[in-house]
Amino acid sequence: MLPSTVRVREVGPRDGFQNEPEIIATEDKLRLIELLGGSGLRRIELTSFVRADVIPQLADAAEVLERAQLPADVDRSVLVPNERGLDAAFEHRDCFEEINVFLSASETHNRRNVNRSVAESLAGLERVLVRGREAGLRCEGVISTSFGCPYEGRVDPARVLGIAGTLVAAGAQEVAFGDTTGMANPIQVRNFFTRAREELGDAVELTAHFHNTRGAALANVLASLEAGIDSFESSFGELGGCPVPAGATGNVATEDLVSMLHEMGIETGVALDRLLEAARAARKVLGRALGSHLLVAGPVDWERPAA
Amino acid sequence: MLPSTVRVREVGPRDGFQNEPEIIATEDKLRLIELLGGSGLRRIELTSFVRADVIPQLADAAEVLERAQLPADVDRSVLVPNERGLDAAFEHRDCFEEINVFLSASETHNRRNVNRSVAESLAGLERVLVRGREAGLRCEGVISTSFGCPYEGRVDPARVLGIAGTLVAAGAQEVAFGDTTGMANPIQVRNFFTRAREELGDAVELTAHFHNTRGAALANVLASLEAGIDSFESSFGELGGCPVPAGATGNVATEDLVSMLHEMGIETGVALDRLLEAARAARKVLGRALGSHLLVAGPVDWERPAA
Repeated sequence: MLPSTVRVREVGPRDGFQNEPEIIATEDKLRLIELLGGSGLRRIELTSFVRADVIPQLADAAEVLERAQLPADVDRSVLVPNERGLDAAFEHRDCFEEINVFLSASETHNRRNVNRSVAESLAGLERVLVRGREAGLRCEGVISTSFGCPYEGRVDPARVLGIAGTLVAAGAQEVAFGDTTGMANPIQVRNFFTRAREELGDAVELTAHFHNTRGAALANVLASLEAGIDSFESSFGELGGCPVPAGATGNVATEDLVSMLHEMGIETGVALDRLLEAARAARKVLGRALGSHLLVAGPVDWERPAA
Repeated sequence: MLPSTVRVREVGPRDGFQNEPEIIATEDKLRLIELLGGSGLRRIELTSFVRADVIPQLADAAEVLERAQLPADVDRSVLVPNERGLDAAFEHRDCFEEINVFLSASETHNRRNVNRSVAESLAGLERVLVRGREAGLRCEGVISTSFGCPYEGRVDPARVLGIAGTLVAAGAQEVAFGDTTGMANPIQVRNFFTRAREELGDAVELTAHFHNTRGAALANVLASLEAGIDSFESSFGELGGCPVPAGATGNVATEDLVSMLHEMGIETGVALDRLLEAARAARKVLGRALGSHLLVAGPVDWERPAA
């Protein structure tokens, strides 16, 4: 029995924009975020407080947070890399309801990404999670390379679930498992989430985050649904994701995900036509073709009259 | 329990090439076909005998058939639109082992495609199938728009299975069901193939042919496997497929399909690296980026040592 309703968390304004080489004007970001909020998406990752010299694309984090126009029932979230990032976010405490912390399950990927060991990352993120919960924020942990690492190959599910357990113990109410370079297959995914639900229980929200690197993202979504997972992360326009291997596509497109779910009779609360409007606007801002399939093909139209 | 082995029928040299606007040199076609045969694919659709003024791309059908260099255990197949096409194919009878006949499940799509009603198509194809069987050929029927029609919307599964039954009665040993414009979803697919196996039995081979128009092709493959289907059609490089909607991708890429199946532990007999060699050669011949994901990302590498 598949879930009848699914929660979709949109990561495009952070994960997607962060991976764009050309700086996007803050006004454009705000307009795209507003379109996303108008589409019925109820969880949106808006930005991250990182060093502007490292990621200039997100140097406008404070302005984006302060000025984003979103319906009152949208959970606004901020990616927080460390305590300094949390301090910076707290200066805009009334502008978001959720924080996301992240690390990789594999040592090499974590070191290349944040220049720390997994243990060092975990120690820092535990402090962030404790402070986040004290401040009344919803806290999510994101574990990259949960299904395989481009540098180390196989990643032991026991290791991934151990990291997840540590994040939950520190206060994470939700853990997302990322297939960062599209190495996952449906059997692996079903086995992983079946075990994750057994070991972590249903008290913590388990979220699947797939990349379409090798075209199997929606097959992995199906396998997750079959394992009882009803929470997914994705990015409008198929923006963002890991640039390894070079040129590969990243996050599964939110509109491709929502289209398949709706066709399966699973509710998301998203108005697909309005989501596509946001993706079209992103395509125009970025001035290039995007990886999203729905953006080209349009929604399935069952009502089209015979010509 | 999923099947442990899957048969993959490659349709690129016919379906893929046919949809290319620029004429591909016969020598290039022959080289690509040879690469496909060297990859372990054991069923390849080579060409079609159609009117050269309608489809100039396939005007070299006789030469392709006569000159294709393939291992002895490869089933070579020819798409046959009608009795005249069969007569033309019979002039090269020792160059192929299989014929494929096709029609659409929906009236409007069939009329737009071949300018006949479904009943008229069926009547003609029954004669082709009878003659094909008499000549000792393996006969496959392909039913387009089996999961939805871009002009008529929903297509009644009873109608599709009725057409399949007629083809089987006329001699088809295999029926492929095409999702011609990518309208299928996994629940629909699983229900359809469960019913198809019940109604048509296991004596006839049931094959799934998905397009990745809306990104869900491999999810639909997974749903088919779960319904016990172990035969698929695809096109290397993601070549070909239906150009409706305009600009949309078509057939799922053989290398994306094979990659997911292998990752799931399902055997295909295909050497993925050699298949990718064929896809790379096609990209070079066509001089443009192709829709295939594996062609960009490469195979999953579980053995990569820590850097």
